[in-house]
Amino acid sequence: MIIVLKPTATQEEIDELENEFLERGFQVDRSEGESHTLLGLIGDTKSVDSSPLRSKHYVERVVRVNQPFKKASRYFHPKDSKIKINDDTVVGEGTISLIAGPCSIESEDQIISIAEDVKKAGATMLRGGAFKPRTSPYSFQGMQTNGLELMLLAKEKTGLPIVTEIMDLSQLPMFEDVDVIQVGARNCQNFTLLKELGRTQKPILLKRGMSQNIKELLMSAEYIMAGGNNNVILCERGIRTFETLTRNTLDLSAIPVLKKHTHLPIIIDPSHATGLSELVEPMTLAAIAAGADGIMVEVHNNPEAALCDGEQAIKPEEFAQIVDKARKYAELSHKTI
Amino acid sequence: MIIVLKPTATQEEIDELENEFLERGFQVDRSEGESHTLLGLIGDTKSVDSSPLRSKHYVERVVRVNQPFKKASRYFHPKDSKIKINDDTVVGEGTISLIAGPCSIESEDQIISIAEDVKKAGATMLRGGAFKPRTSPYSFQGMQTNGLELMLLAKEKTGLPIVTEIMDLSQLPMFEDVDVIQVGARNCQNFTLLKELGRTQKPILLKRGMSQNIKELLMSAEYIMAGGNNNVILCERGIRTFETLTRNTLDLSAIPVLKKHTHLPIIIDPSHATGLSELVEPMTLAAIAAGADGIMVEVHNNPEAALCDGEQAIKPEEFAQIVDKARKYAELSHKTI
Amino acid sequence: MIIVLKPTATQEEIDELENEFLERGFQVDRSEGESHTLLGLIGDTKSVDSSPLRSKHYVERVVRVNQPFKKASRYFHPKDSKIKINDDTVVGEGTISLIAGPCSIESEDQIISIAEDVKKAGATMLRGGAFKPRTSPYSFQGMQTNGLELMLLAKEKTGLPIVTEIMDLSQLPMFEDVDVIQVGARNCQNFTLLKELGRTQKPILLKRGMSQNIKELLMSAEYIMAGGNNNVILCERGIRTFETLTRNTLDLSAIPVLKKHTHLPIIIDPSHATGLSELVEPMTLAAIAAGADGIMVEVHNNPEAALCDGEQAIKPEEFAQIVDKARKYAELSHKTI
Amino acid sequence: MIIVLKPTATQEEIDELENEFLERGFQVDRSEGESHTLLGLIGDTKSVDSSPLRSKHYVERVVRVNQPFKKASRYFHPKDSKIKINDDTVVGEGTISLIAGPCSIESEDQIISIAEDVKKAGATMLRGGAFKPRTSPYSFQGMQTNGLELMLLAKEKTGLPIVTEIMDLSQLPMFEDVDVIQVGARNCQNFTLLKELGRTQKPILLKRGMSQNIKELLMSAEYIMAGGNNNVILCERGIRTFETLTRNTLDLSAIPVLKKHTHLPIIIDPSHATGLSELVEPMTLAAIAAGADGIMVEVHNNPEAALCDGEQAIKPEEFAQIVDKARKYAELSHKTI
Repeated sequence: MIIVLKPTATQEEIDELENEFLERGFQVDRSEGESHTLLGLIGDTKSVDSSPLRSKHYVERVVRVNQPFKKASRYFHPKDSKIKINDDTVVGEGTISLIAGPCSIESEDQIISIAEDVKKAGATMLRGGAFKPRTSPYSFQGMQTNGLELMLLAKEKTGLPIVTEIMDLSQLPMFEDVDVIQVGARNCQNFTLLKELGRTQKPILLKRGMSQNIKELLMSAEYIMAGGNNNVILCERGIRTFETLTRNTLDLSAIPVLKKHTHLPIIIDPSHATGLSELVEPMTLAAIAAGADGIMVEVHNNPEAALCDGEQAIKPEEFAQIVDKARKYAELSHKTI
Repeated sequence: MIIVLKPTATQEEIDELENEFLERGFQVDRSEGESHTLLGLIGDTKSVDSSPLRSKHYVERVVRVNQPFKKASRYFHPKDSKIKINDDTVVGEGTISLIAGPCSIESEDQIISIAEDVKKAGATMLRGGAFKPRTSPYSFQGMQTNGLELMLLAKEKTGLPIVTEIMDLSQLPMFEDVDVIQVGARNCQNFTLLKELGRTQKPILLKRGMSQNIKELLMSAEYIMAGGNNNVILCERGIRTFETLTRNTLDLSAIPVLKKHTHLPIIIDPSHATGLSELVEPMTLAAIAAGADGIMVEVHNNPEAALCDGEQAIKPEEFAQIVDKARKYAELSHKTI
Repeated sequence: MIIVLKPTATQEEIDELENEFLERGFQVDRSEGESHTLLGLIGDTKSVDSSPLRSKHYVERVVRVNQPFKKASRYFHPKDSKIKINDDTVVGEGTISLIAGPCSIESEDQIISIAEDVKKAGATMLRGGAFKPRTSPYSFQGMQTNGLELMLLAKEKTGLPIVTEIMDLSQLPMFEDVDVIQVGARNCQNFTLLKELGRTQKPILLKRGMSQNIKELLMSAEYIMAGGNNNVILCERGIRTFETLTRNTLDLSAIPVLKKHTHLPIIIDPSHATGLSELVEPMTLAAIAAGADGIMVEVHNNPEAALCDGEQAIKPEEFAQIVDKARKYAELSHKTI
Repeated sequence: MIIVLKPTATQEEIDELENEFLERGFQVDRSEGESHTLLGLIGDTKSVDSSPLRSKHYVERVVRVNQPFKKASRYFHPKDSKIKINDDTVVGEGTISLIAGPCSIESEDQIISIAEDVKKAGATMLRGGAFKPRTSPYSFQGMQTNGLELMLLAKEKTGLPIVTEIMDLSQLPMFEDVDVIQVGARNCQNFTLLKELGRTQKPILLKRGMSQNIKELLMSAEYIMAGGNNNVILCERGIRTFETLTRNTLDLSAIPVLKKHTHLPIIIDPSHATGLSELVEPMTLAAIAAGADGIMVEVHNNPEAALCDGEQAIKPEEFAQIVDKARKYAELSHKTI
């Protein structure tokens, strides 16, 4: 629960309110903004009645976030966050990150070739799945540990930082040299995993769940941040709706809404959102126009033979063309690729 | 059309069904799988209703290969349509239409003032509601006939073509001098109205229903076109999802999907889609980047006193700024405003 | 906006509040309940700030119904409504209505035969569509006026009251001898039509729209009731979700939720909701168990040859079996069929 | 599997694709339609990934004829499964299981008292959460290991088999004496966890995800069964829709749909589905009427002080009344409680 006090609130009034909650056993987090002071109540605020609070003349608003995010909130951290990936790479801070690579790592040749291609085209990070969450147990489940090793090899050869998905916390020790750990849409509320990732300092790419609303996405980020890891990158990848011509419905309005509520950077994944390779270009450009901090795209050197999600992958030469266009849109947004 | 028969279907049942379609003049292609037999119908299956078929106890599924829309389909009309509004104005054909104006017409002063402002800012058409579909019978229902007259006055004074919503076919005679007749989301499957509009030659701005999928939207367009009126402009205005921070979820991926299936132009309404004035700019720019043929925006000279939907309206000066930015995005798409 | 006053509120306090709003130009509707007094504000309450109201010690709750239903609300009408159809038939009041018949009227033989069959099986009303809202303009659009005449003939022959759908207000004069006028899901927010129906005294069967939430359904009922026609029967017929194995998702929890908020009777249509004939029985029984006031079912003497929605129609003998089972469930709910 | 080729596909492309599948050992059935050519693959297509196929530029659509689930499918196992819990308790086989208990275990007194109460009222299993997946990291996260021990104590004292949720596979060793392991909605596609549970022989209560469609639920069951554990109980607990008056929308039509496609038993959780205690009774009775094999209900001795989800919990005496009514509905379905 966040209590937003009026600019006219006196020091005495704020102290009084703070003491009231300290006595009731809450921890109180005080934050002085430029115009407003905020009190963040930590503890079980479910029993706190917000209406008497709201009737106090010096209180402006009570934000009853039944699922209250604090560390992810722009209230407490008005400036945009930038997430440092390595000495050369940052997410946020006026850059458009371009994360590209195959859905699954399939062989050394495949991942090295794609890595080199996307680097040349302008990608800033390499993506690739070693552990694959597939709807069917009979589908290819990824190269697992071997895949992870090939991913690290590709990093070594190209210098690109790598992003790859963790499916269970037991895999965490293997991710030591991974630059960004991806939490997939299906694990967006695997709270045990999120908590554990909160104990690391690794950048986490947190994908929005298929039916997760924006507040809940921020609560999932909060799980990681509550543990002390502020390096969270949000990723919108389509939500589930009644429309069937696209695999999911890409929610681009989530970008400005998230920008309003949080300081964390936001990446868009047009490949998984739409499931259609021909939609990757228009949705990439639209995402940049809407204010995204980056794009994550599936690129495959041979989509027709891909072991997974071929219909949404684009070829390296298509990726290069998209990057060329994207640069111009980034410029209009005063951002750099 | 492919008919998938159940594994339990008897030879006699399959023969009977095959004969039924042979007699109706179709060619039937029979394929015996490991568990299922399939019958493929060859011929014009548009008139074959799949539901009685599905009710046969030995039929498992009916799969339609051809889309049931024809006049709206790009198959039959590969070139983009342009809709002529008047001698100076066209929708489609490399232009970005900018339709702006208040949610409701409230007075002569209001509509004339807004019309002049949006014209100066670059709007190509004026929007404004005379008949308002409000969820509550106790809300302001629009100025009705008087509003329509004021709208025509604004057209006369500014030269801007006007777009306004029809709510019932009994109102049609009053729309003679209206340039574009809008069919609202709530009337998207008011088939009696759509048929009647198909008998006119008026340009129709057809809004997608809140839970209408893209195929159904094209079927609604088909209702108008089947009557002989090809002047249909589609409008995406947000679909209903579980997300509550925006009023609806703007489905920008509908733009390239529609472009693939139809030759009709597509306009985006970011105001109704999001319900939030601060989202109008990013969603306008994103829509243009995604390939939209235009934008329809709510502009009000005094949003805080608006009789309807003030929270999503922007001021004329904000509209002017958006148009300035939009021009640059239009340029990148090789379109003109 | 409805202001719920505490049981302890004094007469003076209530008068004071009422005067405050009268002076502000609102019309105030006062309603004394058994324990609570309610004030209903009529006018544009959008500008009324509810929080100072809520801080008054004698106010229990402020129901900010942006779309405020009053006449449909149980607050103002605590007792269940019963809707009189004719001298023998009533909807509500401890009865389970059984409305059965074909999707479309196809011929005299068909409708008379089905009417006689369902009457024998226990149906209390006959349904049948003359004007059909079909997604495709190329599908059978109903027998129109001729269909309506056949429906009236079936009424005459069997004595069953009839329910049939109106698609446009221009058809209203033809509905004089129709007992219950159905407003379909696609017209649930055709406010012009709803208003016009509010000027009659005909019982209206109002279907919930595919993406209409429960509050909006009640607002649509309110449109009819605001005009003076209180004879509204609500009908849940499935909402649109991401699930594709059923045509829509039947929302049976809407029954107790509606019972809480409104006094109007609630009918369930398992045929359209599920689109599958084999689901009609379990969903009928479940609806009765959940507290529905009746069921509307598609019955066809030859579903495989039906011109519309055959896969969801059941045969008269299946209907008879369902009625037999339904009687036992009705009994458990202390209702009669 | 049917591959629908685009009208523009060349003879060479079609031949190439046909040969590819012939070489992979499939029989290929070719059918030339008026506009489209179709290829029907005959053989075990379960391992054929459709997505690379869809990425070929000359492929329009890929239609799967067979369901991709096998062990969960009724095709391969026509008889209803019964899941043995202990010597006295079975799920399925004409019984209605009544699983009751608190959302969270809060203390020894609490869980023992509730366990005794629900047993007396007729519950066949005790539920209670030790590890709690809460949207907020600041909410009560369950008593964890201590809670599990109290749950085992309650089992010992009452003889009731227990159901409790696992949140991560690292917790599995602690679940040795737990009778039924629950996989929550948020972990419904935690495939690593599902696979591991497939290596045990423990009965698993698998909850449907909030946006999981029925086929995907069966695929999640298939993950467990593919490992050799056939003891899977499905649980419908509401899906996420646009309706906000209930927490989720309980999909009771899933019961007969699941019964058609699978032999596994189905339990309904009306408490989580609706989030409203007053809906537990009508939805319980409706679920039994629709064919459910059991009910899982939250019961708390003091809902107003519950540490979690108090608003949906019912009191033990209310539970006893519901059981009394439920017995009569079970009887009508020829089942026993």
